[in-house]
Amino acid sequence: MGYSKNEIEVRKLEHILLCKYCNVEYDKTTLLEDVELIHRGTSGINFNDIETEIKLFGKKLSAPIIVSGMTGGHTIAKEINKNIAKAVDELGLGMGVGSQRAAIVNEDLIDTYNIVRSYTDNLVIGNLGAVNFIVDNWDEEIIDKAVEMIDADAMAIHFNPLQEIIQPEGDLNFKNIDKLKEIISNYKKKYKDIPFIAKQVGEGFSKEDAIILKNIDFDAIDIQGSGGTSWAKVELLRIKDDETKDLLKKFVNWGIPTAASIFEVKSVYNNIIIGSGGIRSGLDIAKCIAIGCDCCGVALPILKASLKGWEEVVKVLEKYIKELKIAMFLVGAENIEELKKTPYIVKGYLKDWISQRL
Amino acid sequence: MGYSKNEIEVRKLEHILLCKYCNVEYDKTTLLEDVELIHRGTSGINFNDIETEIKLFGKKLSAPIIVSGMTGGHTIAKEINKNIAKAVDELGLGMGVGSQRAAIVNEDLIDTYNIVRSYTDNLVIGNLGAVNFIVDNWDEEIIDKAVEMIDADAMAIHFNPLQEIIQPEGDLNFKNIDKLKEIISNYKKKYKDIPFIAKQVGEGFSKEDAIILKNIDFDAIDIQGSGGTSWAKVELLRIKDDETKDLLKKFVNWGIPTAASIFEVKSVYNNIIIGSGGIRSGLDIAKCIAIGCDCCGVALPILKASLKGWEEVVKVLEKYIKELKIAMFLVGAENIEELKKTPYIVKGYLKDWISQRL
Amino acid sequence: MGYSKNEIEVRKLEHILLCKYCNVEYDKTTLLEDVELIHRGTSGINFNDIETEIKLFGKKLSAPIIVSGMTGGHTIAKEINKNIAKAVDELGLGMGVGSQRAAIVNEDLIDTYNIVRSYTDNLVIGNLGAVNFIVDNWDEEIIDKAVEMIDADAMAIHFNPLQEIIQPEGDLNFKNIDKLKEIISNYKKKYKDIPFIAKQVGEGFSKEDAIILKNIDFDAIDIQGSGGTSWAKVELLRIKDDETKDLLKKFVNWGIPTAASIFEVKSVYNNIIIGSGGIRSGLDIAKCIAIGCDCCGVALPILKASLKGWEEVVKVLEKYIKELKIAMFLVGAENIEELKKTPYIVKGYLKDWISQRL
Amino acid sequence: MGYSKNEIEVRKLEHILLCKYCNVEYDKTTLLEDVELIHRGTSGINFNDIETEIKLFGKKLSAPIIVSGMTGGHTIAKEINKNIAKAVDELGLGMGVGSQRAAIVNEDLIDTYNIVRSYTDNLVIGNLGAVNFIVDNWDEEIIDKAVEMIDADAMAIHFNPLQEIIQPEGDLNFKNIDKLKEIISNYKKKYKDIPFIAKQVGEGFSKEDAIILKNIDFDAIDIQGSGGTSWAKVELLRIKDDETKDLLKKFVNWGIPTAASIFEVKSVYNNIIIGSGGIRSGLDIAKCIAIGCDCCGVALPILKASLKGWEEVVKVLEKYIKELKIAMFLVGAENIEELKKTPYIVKGYLKDWISQRL
Repeated sequence: MGYSKNEIEVRKLEHILLCKYCNVEYDKTTLLEDVELIHRGTSGINFNDIETEIKLFGKKLSAPIIVSGMTGGHTIAKEINKNIAKAVDELGLGMGVGSQRAAIVNEDLIDTYNIVRSYTDNLVIGNLGAVNFIVDNWDEEIIDKAVEMIDADAMAIHFNPLQEIIQPEGDLNFKNIDKLKEIISNYKKKYKDIPFIAKQVGEGFSKEDAIILKNIDFDAIDIQGSGGTSWAKVELLRIKDDETKDLLKKFVNWGIPTAASIFEVKSVYNNIIIGSGGIRSGLDIAKCIAIGCDCCGVALPILKASLKGWEEVVKVLEKYIKELKIAMFLVGAENIEELKKTPYIVKGYLKDWISQRL
Repeated sequence: MGYSKNEIEVRKLEHILLCKYCNVEYDKTTLLEDVELIHRGTSGINFNDIETEIKLFGKKLSAPIIVSGMTGGHTIAKEINKNIAKAVDELGLGMGVGSQRAAIVNEDLIDTYNIVRSYTDNLVIGNLGAVNFIVDNWDEEIIDKAVEMIDADAMAIHFNPLQEIIQPEGDLNFKNIDKLKEIISNYKKKYKDIPFIAKQVGEGFSKEDAIILKNIDFDAIDIQGSGGTSWAKVELLRIKDDETKDLLKKFVNWGIPTAASIFEVKSVYNNIIIGSGGIRSGLDIAKCIAIGCDCCGVALPILKASLKGWEEVVKVLEKYIKELKIAMFLVGAENIEELKKTPYIVKGYLKDWISQRL
Repeated sequence: MGYSKNEIEVRKLEHILLCKYCNVEYDKTTLLEDVELIHRGTSGINFNDIETEIKLFGKKLSAPIIVSGMTGGHTIAKEINKNIAKAVDELGLGMGVGSQRAAIVNEDLIDTYNIVRSYTDNLVIGNLGAVNFIVDNWDEEIIDKAVEMIDADAMAIHFNPLQEIIQPEGDLNFKNIDKLKEIISNYKKKYKDIPFIAKQVGEGFSKEDAIILKNIDFDAIDIQGSGGTSWAKVELLRIKDDETKDLLKKFVNWGIPTAASIFEVKSVYNNIIIGSGGIRSGLDIAKCIAIGCDCCGVALPILKASLKGWEEVVKVLEKYIKELKIAMFLVGAENIEELKKTPYIVKGYLKDWISQRL
Repeated sequence: MGYSKNEIEVRKLEHILLCKYCNVEYDKTTLLEDVELIHRGTSGINFNDIETEIKLFGKKLSAPIIVSGMTGGHTIAKEINKNIAKAVDELGLGMGVGSQRAAIVNEDLIDTYNIVRSYTDNLVIGNLGAVNFIVDNWDEEIIDKAVEMIDADAMAIHFNPLQEIIQPEGDLNFKNIDKLKEIISNYKKKYKDIPFIAKQVGEGFSKEDAIILKNIDFDAIDIQGSGGTSWAKVELLRIKDDETKDLLKKFVNWGIPTAASIFEVKSVYNNIIIGSGGIRSGLDIAKCIAIGCDCCGVALPILKASLKGWEEVVKVLEKYIKELKIAMFLVGAENIEELKKTPYIVKGYLKDWISQRL
């Protein structure tokens, strides 16, 4: 599609600034508030024995938290990625980078991504768009470029139909996405056998999606459901024209809430599930894991913190870890495996959702 | 019943002006907000492949949208009908005209209806009131007059007990409406074999109604449920006398919400269903089709636009079509047949309604 | 119990004035709003054929409406009873009088009750308190006095534990109320075979109550549920002392909502059911009859109207009848028997109530 | 853990003052509002026959009400305990004292607890923290000290993981709490055979907890659920540092609502259940008993009253008893055993909770 490298850069900068300064979050919620963990009055554990460590994609994480891939391709994005890398290195967590297409198209931008490897050997996840494998006929060579660019431990392929349809510059062809099966398989055979993650960008995957992703042999699904950053809201702020604004407003609440998407995917998919989209506390993380996730991704609060400095990112993540540990103490879970088995209640709309769909 | 031709004209004008300037919409909703379409994160289709075309009553429509029959019988009504006709011609959609009784009673008013045929050969639907076949002993000859007046492709017979009971001038006898079976059958035999549509005017049909309408051999049901224009509200504005006002207030929320009426009718009726009553976006249209409609009707937003000019009507309808296509893209439906099969969730009051009635 | 005749009179006047000027209605509702009658788009009837007539306790009523027994024993009460009698006579409806104890205790007050017979031969229902048959050892002779006082067509025995407990002067012994069985039976044998009605005063009867009332051989139950006048609220206004006020506040929402009480009683009781407590429109009456009542009672709106004159009472009742007829037209019910069979939906809390109790 | 005796004292004083002057109650409710007792229109009993007496832990109580153990270890605490003791003695009720650890650690403080025995021979319940039996290796000798200190009729062992985790000085080890089984058994053999109560402090016990407590052979469970005083809110007021404040806010609504906790515990535990946490009226007490409790505990309203004088405590408790008796009259329950069998409805979230957990 006809857009210049410069246009991509400008859009990326706009997105960062809008997320920093404006309300870009869904009016509707993640539905995690419809999940209630059950207090254990007797607790039965020693807080100091609590272990939050997990292993993910071959690397150890000190807690089931990754910073979701958000940005790249711009000077500010480089700074953001650097700060996130320093923070996750400090805390023993993992991170993703934003869509690497900018650097695939323009090699001058590679350093805005691979800066992360100057600061951490921890888990780093690469990121490419599913739509480009169709529209731009990308193949395993592009994947190889992206992986090598940042020495990626795993590769996320993002699916973003809403984002594409609402951007004036969007790519609109998601037909034949099952060709990804062969491309990924070829990549693994010819290059490296690293895990691949199918990732949404804030509207969630349905169970129908999960079946398709399973057939493509994705090793993990990062559900990124609704309730956090709304791309329709971000675009609404970027766009001047009244009629497009009016149209966008119809879709600002489109998408599957995070908690609902976790239940949808879990019902048909047995591999690794990452819960993300509107994760705003360690209590949210505890809930996601209790209802079926292996790990959680955090984005917007980290983006905001990263613009202030890496120490701010550390602070936010430390608070999440502490909250997670308190929640584990109060439900009497000594480690993440026990947290996965803790009882919970599902109420309200989430309960209705589950009863009708699963 | 004793009312002069002039009275009918004045009332029609009042209705148009009240709809233009005042809040005449139900406080209660269509319950379409209780229908949630399921986002498909993988989409799986090419936006540019999406086809919204349908065939309805022997004519092609570029999208499953008709402008509901609203008016006629007045100079302003003529202008409205003209603008709608130009717009639907431009976009390849269909339209209805308002009740043709005014022109049946007074031939001078015929041009306020047949103006539409100077601007379009697309689907045009005629319109007569069921109550007059009982009260005024109308027969197939009257139908013939109405059809020929506008060269109608199909004929709507409207049922409007609430409207009649709340108008001081109303006809109040809906007894023996099954005589319509013979009249319609006679018409089809003696004149033209065109389809007949039973149409409500904003209070919806129940499943009990649908069984009766099926037995009368109606070819389609236009459910026109509650949630859009409230005729009790319109009358409330027209009426001065406090006691009648007080009485009308008790019935401003009477009626079956549009989404509920669609489920009611669908449960017993296998022919064509048109969803209307409070349709305010292409997303509403997508929902109606997902839950069982073949096409949707839009009224109030088009009435308002038509008073500004035909280009305004085009704009509103284009926006609806665009929204419909975006919704189809996001649920991965390439055409209307696929949209009919897309999964959805029913929540809240609509869920309760269905569980108790169907 | 020791209270003077004068005290009874003063209390009665206070009650009337508080009901006239203050908000004495429940914060909680009758739950009739959780009942939705189903619109019949085809109607199928002629409005002018609609018959609202019923037969109740051997007398004809032009509509299923009685004015609930409210007052007596005071000059103003006499005026109220007179105005109600004139109005029901005008319209062909029935009425009750308030508790006749005042006149049993003090014969000078008889005319404040029997005034009604100077104005109507229609259905008039007498009224005595159940508690006095226990506390004051009343017997069939007292009933005879009450019946003869107003030439009653039927006799209501009211049960008012909340009212008694919250009044400083209250009688608090409802033990052995089954002795009413013998007293009523004796009365019927020795005096007149008229029907007896068990009547609540705004807190409703439960199904457990209905079984007891059935065993006492009551011919009808007037459920008088919560949602209309709250006696705790009335007392709250009368009482000065802060501590009692605080205590009363705990019970201002006590009681079984009218709609719930109708379902409770209907589930175990096959005889005549009168729906009352918060009936505020003909639509409420239509709903009560659809869910199982034979007739409805109206109180507070009539009390207020009666203080302005008998023509006001006529106006209010005429409006109720008109609203009832419109509702019947819109559900396609030609008479009360058909209205009893009209379909309806039960939603919200009322649905929960029914599913847990019945 | 290293904190001085003085620190304990200061904290205790702070807690008392915060409870007196600030809003320290949960935003979420006890869910007792989701319990509706069913009005008995016929009542069937004599108010003057109503007996509220129960026997608890070998002593008679004039009503099923105890004042929950709240404080001790400070001059003001001594005054509070004295006033509560005088009040319960006056009314024939029971009481608990606050955690006796302060006096175990510092014998000078003993009189702030044993003051109660100068004013009452009624039921007095001692109080020690479960966590100290683990962290400080307490044994049956400590229990003996606590029992003898106040001549306790029963001993409460409190479980307070939330309180400990949110206090900077908190003890965080609840591992191996089943060692309490042997300690309690030893105590009973070597010293006195008095009943032991497992008690929460405002977050409730789950059914999983109740099974553990049953196995430890606790004679009673005092569920102290959420909806009353929130310890996270109290701490939020004490703490200055913004980050800890932010973290505490995540847990201010943590816990099992009182009504839910009663149902949880009742489902697996057949011994004595005390309902507490947010009990604010005699109607609350009636509900707790109807859904399964043997007695109720009241805290915050009594703390506030006790700071004004013992007569204020009497007033509050008398009002509760009166409200309880009115509720019993209105449901037709002559005594506590009958109240336990009165029917009720469970609605809203509480209904959902029960259906998913029990």
